[in-house]
Amino acid sequence: MTISGASLIGQNRVQGDGPPFHGIRADNGESLAPAFGSAGEAQVELACTLAQQGFDAFRQRPYEHRALLLEGIAQGILDLGPALIERAMLETGLPAARLEGERARTVAQLRLFARVVRDGNWVAATLDSAQPQRAPAPRPDLRMGKIGLGPVAVFGASNFPLAFSVAGGDTASALAAGCPVVVKAHPAHPGTAALVGGAIQRAVTDLGLPEGVFSLLFGRDLALGEALVRHPAIAAVGFTGSRRGGLALLALAQQRPQPIPVYAEMSAINPVLLLPAALRSRGETIAQSFVDSLTLGAGQFCTNPGLLLGIAGADLERFQTYATQALAGKDAATMLTPGIHAAYQQGVERHAASTGVRLLARGRGTTQPFAACAALFAVSAQTLLANPALSEEVFGPAALVVSCRDEAELREVLEHLEGQLTATLQLDAGDHELAAGLMPILERKAGRILANAFPTGVEVTYAMVHGGPFPATSDARSTSVGAAAIERFLRPVCYQDLPQALLPEALRDGNPLAMWRMRDGTPSLD
Amino acid sequence: MTISGASLIGQNRVQGDGPPFHGIRADNGESLAPAFGSAGEAQVELACTLAQQGFDAFRQRPYEHRALLLEGIAQGILDLGPALIERAMLETGLPAARLEGERARTVAQLRLFARVVRDGNWVAATLDSAQPQRAPAPRPDLRMGKIGLGPVAVFGASNFPLAFSVAGGDTASALAAGCPVVVKAHPAHPGTAALVGGAIQRAVTDLGLPEGVFSLLFGRDLALGEALVRHPAIAAVGFTGSRRGGLALLALAQQRPQPIPVYAEMSAINPVLLLPAALRSRGETIAQSFVDSLTLGAGQFCTNPGLLLGIAGADLERFQTYATQALAGKDAATMLTPGIHAAYQQGVERHAASTGVRLLARGRGTTQPFAACAALFAVSAQTLLANPALSEEVFGPAALVVSCRDEAELREVLEHLEGQLTATLQLDAGDHELAAGLMPILERKAGRILANAFPTGVEVTYAMVHGGPFPATSDARSTSVGAAAIERFLRPVCYQDLPQALLPEALRDGNPLAMWRMRDGTPSLD
Repeated sequence: MTISGASLIGQNRVQGDGPPFHGIRADNGESLAPAFGSAGEAQVELACTLAQQGFDAFRQRPYEHRALLLEGIAQGILDLGPALIERAMLETGLPAARLEGERARTVAQLRLFARVVRDGNWVAATLDSAQPQRAPAPRPDLRMGKIGLGPVAVFGASNFPLAFSVAGGDTASALAAGCPVVVKAHPAHPGTAALVGGAIQRAVTDLGLPEGVFSLLFGRDLALGEALVRHPAIAAVGFTGSRRGGLALLALAQQRPQPIPVYAEMSAINPVLLLPAALRSRGETIAQSFVDSLTLGAGQFCTNPGLLLGIAGADLERFQTYATQALAGKDAATMLTPGIHAAYQQGVERHAASTGVRLLARGRGTTQPFAACAALFAVSAQTLLANPALSEEVFGPAALVVSCRDEAELREVLEHLEGQLTATLQLDAGDHELAAGLMPILERKAGRILANAFPTGVEVTYAMVHGGPFPATSDARSTSVGAAAIERFLRPVCYQDLPQALLPEALRDGNPLAMWRMRDGTPSLD
Repeated sequence: MTISGASLIGQNRVQGDGPPFHGIRADNGESLAPAFGSAGEAQVELACTLAQQGFDAFRQRPYEHRALLLEGIAQGILDLGPALIERAMLETGLPAARLEGERARTVAQLRLFARVVRDGNWVAATLDSAQPQRAPAPRPDLRMGKIGLGPVAVFGASNFPLAFSVAGGDTASALAAGCPVVVKAHPAHPGTAALVGGAIQRAVTDLGLPEGVFSLLFGRDLALGEALVRHPAIAAVGFTGSRRGGLALLALAQQRPQPIPVYAEMSAINPVLLLPAALRSRGETIAQSFVDSLTLGAGQFCTNPGLLLGIAGADLERFQTYATQALAGKDAATMLTPGIHAAYQQGVERHAASTGVRLLARGRGTTQPFAACAALFAVSAQTLLANPALSEEVFGPAALVVSCRDEAELREVLEHLEGQLTATLQLDAGDHELAAGLMPILERKAGRILANAFPTGVEVTYAMVHGGPFPATSDARSTSVGAAAIERFLRPVCYQDLPQALLPEALRDGNPLAMWRMRDGTPSLD
């Protein structure tokens, strides 16, 4: 596979007519060949029009074709071999083992959605029997099934160049829903994006699907993403990135003549509650696990644990000592881009300079220009409550330990927090009563609640929720990881008294697709 | 039951401190006693704070309590007896039989949601088994369940003073979801609203639920609704009404520091396709049924059939003759408010004065000041395509028959239409091939597709979709009628490795609530 520097629009490579740009080596900032031509309005128009033209044909193919597409993409990514890992290492600074793991996750995610498509539960097929004898008027036959919203614009994340990028969860779930996808490649890993995009393009061609099912546009300016979100053919947006970026796309989507849903996963500090009994019995172990989680992947996870909450006292002080020791042994690690590194440095400096904030520890220093040195700070609850900037995410391996006077103050801090992707309880049996009282708050604040783990691992399963109240995401009703991610790109259609031949196969008499369906209110295989 | 004119806030009657206003007799515009005090900022603050304070306690009660609440409200409405119907007749001009039918619908709807709550399918309980042996790392135990979003603001509709108002579908589905509700009473039927609100208030008290579970605020100015949507305690909005009103609330909700979902059901013209074979064989019957549907309830239905599409020719002309005859025999009927009547008159005059629009028929004339006389117009497809105003809803018994040159032009008109609540096919066996080709367009355009019926009947069942693409609603992913309406007010929460005691009962081992749950991807009662 060569990387051409052209956008992939339908079956073609189309050189963008905007200014060229290069991928950048994360470790030293040098440019990587080739140059990528920025896609402009004409390329957006072409990709979106093809997507619109292909939508009906794609969604009306047998569901099996979608499953085969997802599996074909997975195999195509594996077939790229080491070249994909090597390019991703250069562009992101992430180590090979991490990227190989992420590739496995990406492939498993595509295959999960193939299974989801085949199972058909996403159709939410619902059949209400006619009641011809009902008085005063007969009840008609009513059947409901879900269909795709339409073409989806996907904005990948810089921190997962495979699993949350061109063939990541947004793309996989949108294709599973029967929606064509137009991806704006993240400019931090354009070569990686081009390789994966090529694999998707080939899978679409191999299955003879409408070419508009997938396009990949390169560009570094905001204008490209804005044009994409504004295009009338686009019916929904998936985004993973900064709060500023997500809110900008959300505002654009709402200003359209026809507003569209935006699923933006934006920012979180993922509070970890160090409950008293656990802190007493396992402070050292928790501290070590916490520091491992904090520094994993240079702290560049949406679910990075950025805030620890405990009750002030000797146990919390011991925890801080353990954490300080553990952190001091952690090497600095190259960040994804020079820009992300600069923002991390500024965030750490801002915390360090804030009134009432005490620096507990730094990780090992480094001479590498774009490597992050971890940082741990201590503050009182009152300091945190008084300074909203301290509750803002610093993307990277930085965290605050917040000491609360008592349980009431702990609750006050929790109520004060914005929406989060996760909330974690470190607890022993003796903490259950306290935890039970906190659960209602945590449920209101977070999409996922963990016990005695750290939030950086996000399983790709049926029950996963990678989402949460604003500003963790722009839409708390959804998840961007796991099988339920497909629901973001679906809408229900009801069919009243339609002849069998005009019904979607999934809703016909005799259950020809052998799916679970709700029949008069009860799940059924009939 | 007396009507006090006070807002109902929690357990209390609170006199609003804003300017007083009166209910108005629909048939003659006279004021009805008593005066209602407009709720102001202080009353909004009180109602919303109580709702927020009651949210956790309400949603954590056994689901059975929600079901009992819904059933208690249903019984309370029945217990109001003829006084409710009499007041509603005065305020809306709707006849007794229609209001009695609507009361039955409202009661059945509340009882359906009681059944929905008990069934528990709304929890979407999803359990993924732990895999302790998985390499390289064990997989945790993951369980997902849905919880309420938080307090919901409900704006009722003028055209269904019971079924889409204080105890209508929005309120019933929000309470079923475990969300407290703050209703802004529609100023077109304040007395009806007060009676129903009193029944809800008593049901809340009788069950010993937190008083903030329900409040009802009276007011005639936009400022009241705006303050409600802006209040930080409000987590979602349900609205049925005009496009302008819905879009205004949507904009407000998006401008909040924490944006919230708005489910606004706004406008539709509900196209009816008169396919050739059906038109030839059953033109007269279809014309009679169409006119009955058009004039039902003075045409004041969101699903009123406002646009008929056929292929030009002798059959369509005969249909127009039949429809003209049928319409000429229809009496004028009092509209809901003088304002709605004035808007209807203007809409009809605007159509009549439009270039290329031909008046086919009017219903019987009247001397009643606020009664609508039905109107049927004919236009060519090209005229419709050239004049966007002709595709705008005229609320009331007015419709356009559009003659298309051929099937291609019929498709062009369909593609041109905005999102709709419904699309209807009048078809015979000979039309199936044509219909099959149109289905993909109809699925993209409408929330419900009917065959050989008219859209004014909206069943309250599991499979119903009363929704559709913008601007029919602000959120095509949802329905405001039927069991699935509960999903609008829910969000998923994932629990990772939590001790049994901290899990919601619905997600515990042994399935203590005996609900259908997804276990490792498959529906199960275990």
